[in-house]
Amino acid sequence: MNPPAAPPQSDDLEVRIPADHPGVTDLFAVLAYGEISAFYRLAEEAELSPTLRGKVAAAKMAAAEMEHFRTLEQALAGRGVDVFDAMAPFVDALDDYHTSTDPSTWLESMVKFYVGDGIAADFYTVLAVALAPEVSSVVRDVLAETSHSEFVVEEVRSAVEVSRSERDRLTLWGRRLLGEAITQAQFVMAQRDELTELVLGATGDLNGIAALFDHMQTRHTERMRVLGLA
Amino acid sequence: MNPPAAPPQSDDLEVRIPADHPGVTDLFAVLAYGEISAFYRLAEEAELSPTLRGKVAAAKMAAAEMEHFRTLEQALAGRGVDVFDAMAPFVDALDDYHTSTDPSTWLESMVKFYVGDGIAADFYTVLAVALAPEVSSVVRDVLAETSHSEFVVEEVRSAVEVSRSERDRLTLWGRRLLGEAITQAQFVMAQRDELTELVLGATGDLNGIAALFDHMQTRHTERMRVLGLA
Repeated sequence: MNPPAAPPQSDDLEVRIPADHPGVTDLFAVLAYGEISAFYRLAEEAELSPTLRGKVAAAKMAAAEMEHFRTLEQALAGRGVDVFDAMAPFVDALDDYHTSTDPSTWLESMVKFYVGDGIAADFYTVLAVALAPEVSSVVRDVLAETSHSEFVVEEVRSAVEVSRSERDRLTLWGRRLLGEAITQAQFVMAQRDELTELVLGATGDLNGIAALFDHMQTRHTERMRVLGLA
Repeated sequence: MNPPAAPPQSDDLEVRIPADHPGVTDLFAVLAYGEISAFYRLAEEAELSPTLRGKVAAAKMAAAEMEHFRTLEQALAGRGVDVFDAMAPFVDALDDYHTSTDPSTWLESMVKFYVGDGIAADFYTVLAVALAPEVSSVVRDVLAETSHSEFVVEEVRSAVEVSRSERDRLTLWGRRLLGEAITQAQFVMAQRDELTELVLGATGDLNGIAALFDHMQTRHTERMRVLGLA
């Protein structure tokens, strides 16, 4: 496998987004609601797991999302912002993403967790490079890789090795997840001027945003390969 | 309000149950499955919350259960026992408890969380006194009071202050929870000789067990009063 593509502007260490940029509150807020909705989705989808071991793995992943939520809640409090007020504008878009990508099997749920987490991490990691250190450290904290993804990789790989139809189905599923995630990300940005300005500022310009989405596509393909979904 | 009644044998600091007592594995296992089932119940019942604030409070409580699960998983691993093997005998009894006390409202769910947690804590705290220090420290760790109960007390108190019928309904609900918890606890013990021996050893004799259940009843009444449910 090729090494992961470098984020578009990773060689550029200049801080382009100061800590008091109004988009930072939006950034923390959308991340915070992302953690909450991931928590509830994981807890709900664990019902699909055929084993108690799978249910417990999902519960651990869900609990890790809540640790991240606390970090963001504190970071927002430090800016004098109530997390619930800040999250309100993002509830519909994230709920829509989850409704439009509702897994019908345990494997779909695991692929969604792994792939969705990865897409989000790619997007925010690229932004983090341009953020003031005290902001970027919060973003990196909540995106930190956990050991849980190993569980997902094993579950999915072993299932698709023995079933070609499962592999084809999950490959399509992964493609749909990327499409829906990008649609909703664009929708969120279109609604929130401060966040759009932050993303534009962090990526440089509209070409930078296009490069960011290309980068996410490349990384997505690599992740699918790790899951055995070529 | 009166100070809480002292546990029946709190003045007796003698270790009656050595760390290698075979019931200790059962004790850790029933606690571990208790955390898992509480996690999923909280996550599921959060759907009943009328506010995002309530949903997030429930998610935080659920995440705390998973931290306790990890502690127990490690303690069992330290004894060379796989947590899933050890939990298997307790799955049905705990699932039955939750099925027989399925809340139909958010307030019932909050009362169940507060009261159920309290009943379990009373039971295990009395046992902990007689356990070897390395075992009792694990038990105390996973029963440690969290700040989440404040949220529950506020939610329930403010609701029952304005509605007498709600207060009457929740008072009956609390009584039913205690009854079901004691029924299931006795059922679990009857099935597991090692655990029965541990509880008998920790409380002294059958009179000690009767005193333990009396103590749980007294503490339950105090907790109901804290919730405004006299």
